[in-house]
Amino acid sequence: MTLPLAVSLGDPAGIGPEVIAKAWERRKADAVPPFFAVGNCLAVKAVWDGPVHIIADPAEAIACFDQALPMLRVDGAGGVVPGQPDFDGAHSALDALELAVGLTRTGSASGLVTGPVSKAQLYQIGFTHPGQTEFVAERCGVSGDLIAMMLVGPTLRTVPVTTHIALQDVPAALTADLIANKGRAAARGLKRQFGIDRPRIAVAGLNPHAGENGALGREEIDVIGPAIERLREEGFDVAGPLAADTMFHERARAAYDAALCMYHDQALIPLKALHFDEGVNMTLGLPIVRTSPDHGTAFHLAGRNEAEPGAMIAALKTAAAAARRIAEA
Amino acid sequence: MTLPLAVSLGDPAGIGPEVIAKAWERRKADAVPPFFAVGNCLAVKAVWDGPVHIIADPAEAIACFDQALPMLRVDGAGGVVPGQPDFDGAHSALDALELAVGLTRTGSASGLVTGPVSKAQLYQIGFTHPGQTEFVAERCGVSGDLIAMMLVGPTLRTVPVTTHIALQDVPAALTADLIANKGRAAARGLKRQFGIDRPRIAVAGLNPHAGENGALGREEIDVIGPAIERLREEGFDVAGPLAADTMFHERARAAYDAALCMYHDQALIPLKALHFDEGVNMTLGLPIVRTSPDHGTAFHLAGRNEAEPGAMIAALKTAAAAARRIAEA
Repeated sequence: MTLPLAVSLGDPAGIGPEVIAKAWERRKADAVPPFFAVGNCLAVKAVWDGPVHIIADPAEAIACFDQALPMLRVDGAGGVVPGQPDFDGAHSALDALELAVGLTRTGSASGLVTGPVSKAQLYQIGFTHPGQTEFVAERCGVSGDLIAMMLVGPTLRTVPVTTHIALQDVPAALTADLIANKGRAAARGLKRQFGIDRPRIAVAGLNPHAGENGALGREEIDVIGPAIERLREEGFDVAGPLAADTMFHERARAAYDAALCMYHDQALIPLKALHFDEGVNMTLGLPIVRTSPDHGTAFHLAGRNEAEPGAMIAALKTAAAAARRIAEA
Repeated sequence: MTLPLAVSLGDPAGIGPEVIAKAWERRKADAVPPFFAVGNCLAVKAVWDGPVHIIADPAEAIACFDQALPMLRVDGAGGVVPGQPDFDGAHSALDALELAVGLTRTGSASGLVTGPVSKAQLYQIGFTHPGQTEFVAERCGVSGDLIAMMLVGPTLRTVPVTTHIALQDVPAALTADLIANKGRAAARGLKRQFGIDRPRIAVAGLNPHAGENGALGREEIDVIGPAIERLREEGFDVAGPLAADTMFHERARAAYDAALCMYHDQALIPLKALHFDEGVNMTLGLPIVRTSPDHGTAFHLAGRNEAEPGAMIAALKTAAAAARRIAEA
């Protein structure tokens, strides 16, 4: 039996509700897999006048998906004004996330797609995780050290080893253990969720020209090289450390399945330069499939009917394809 | 009267001679502007059997350019083996550079295009400059602080504020003075060499999401912001600090004429991801026009007739267009 995807709405005042509704509208044109939204119905009604079908159980989603957007209600206390986030909205976003994770964990949904939340709003209502990813990992009982974020575009996948830290803190944060953990998560994720039997990982250097044998920095020699050696000893197909500036053009990308990058912008600059409207964020190392569109709440765009659903559609399709591969494996 | 460009051959054992000869072959198909090569003729003969016409004076180059590759001889002591650099080759590369700079400085050539050299080889014969750029600046009597490197592709121009230093040294190397100097050089270069009357400069942040108001690093607040303010007070059109990951996609690139980047890979990753075979390195802030193809000696490719002349052709055309704009201004 085909299971639907669970999609948490994200912040009700952001563009999450709009891109989810627009993704449903394009279900036939873009072959969007069946899903149900979890969140405050008012947020969808505030920006969209298409048909919504309230469901009480995820099992109802498939049957009604052709005719209406299936929604599992998590209603907030107050109304929703697009573009104006408030604490009620943050609570509602968190409740929706919690419920969507739970339903996926327990097998009522084939995978989880999370709409964009406002971290600033969440922190103000007492959210203690750095972001949704860590929350999902915790609910799944997996240590944050063992999960990895993979940015997925049509011709490039990147995995940042460090993420939301100041650039000056990156060199000290890089350890052979951390790099090896992320490399393993990347390789296993490529096999499990993308069906790549022997994934090829390309590891970026930290410094210009990968340090030029130590002349422009020693992290390649002291930290990145040893991590690569360790991964190779474990049987993984790993190249590097490579000069980061020459590894993202078309011919170079053909030589690997994912690039392991040392810091946020090293992973995100090439991905977004090449695939801005189609980027998917996939969490590797979880027992469930989880993706999200690679954009934020964009409060400034909310309620103006200008948001592009491309990344949400890509997140839905990527999650469904991964879930199918796991089910068939 | 049209002046030719002066092209230094670079290391005789690298791919410089081959891409220069191939650029000449495509003079009609690609509308390559007239130029003469400066360097060891044996290096060209070793990889190419087309016609070479030895000239004694740059003024002869235009007349013979249709029939043969014009060369001003700077012969080394020994022979040339493609792919096997030696000290004779390094001396010859340096002599060619010196002569080509001098001819451009004194008005015998409209601009200078430099072939790729091996820094490692040059350092071993006593070369004291970090690279060709600093050598050219010194010969032109310009302080290195006031020049800037601009990477030029068909849809993107980037200017790195810091270049060949370890990533961990980047935060301390960034000062408001340095950023403002590079910003001025970029804006003036865009006006003088590209004919853009009111250049728009986009300044990248250093940290993820441009620091998120200090949460992920303070350089945007303490250093980059003040540099931007200073440039604005001087009348320049400057935006930023911008999140580096969202400034290089197609729509974002349309909003500026050059991106001022804080470090090597921030400038080079997007440029090479988008325009690997067409990247031109242009030096701004010099009294002369100087470009070079954005690739190295590639000794492993030399003598195999596999080198692509695209970047050399782009460097020639970019230099000629800049020289024409300056002449007509």
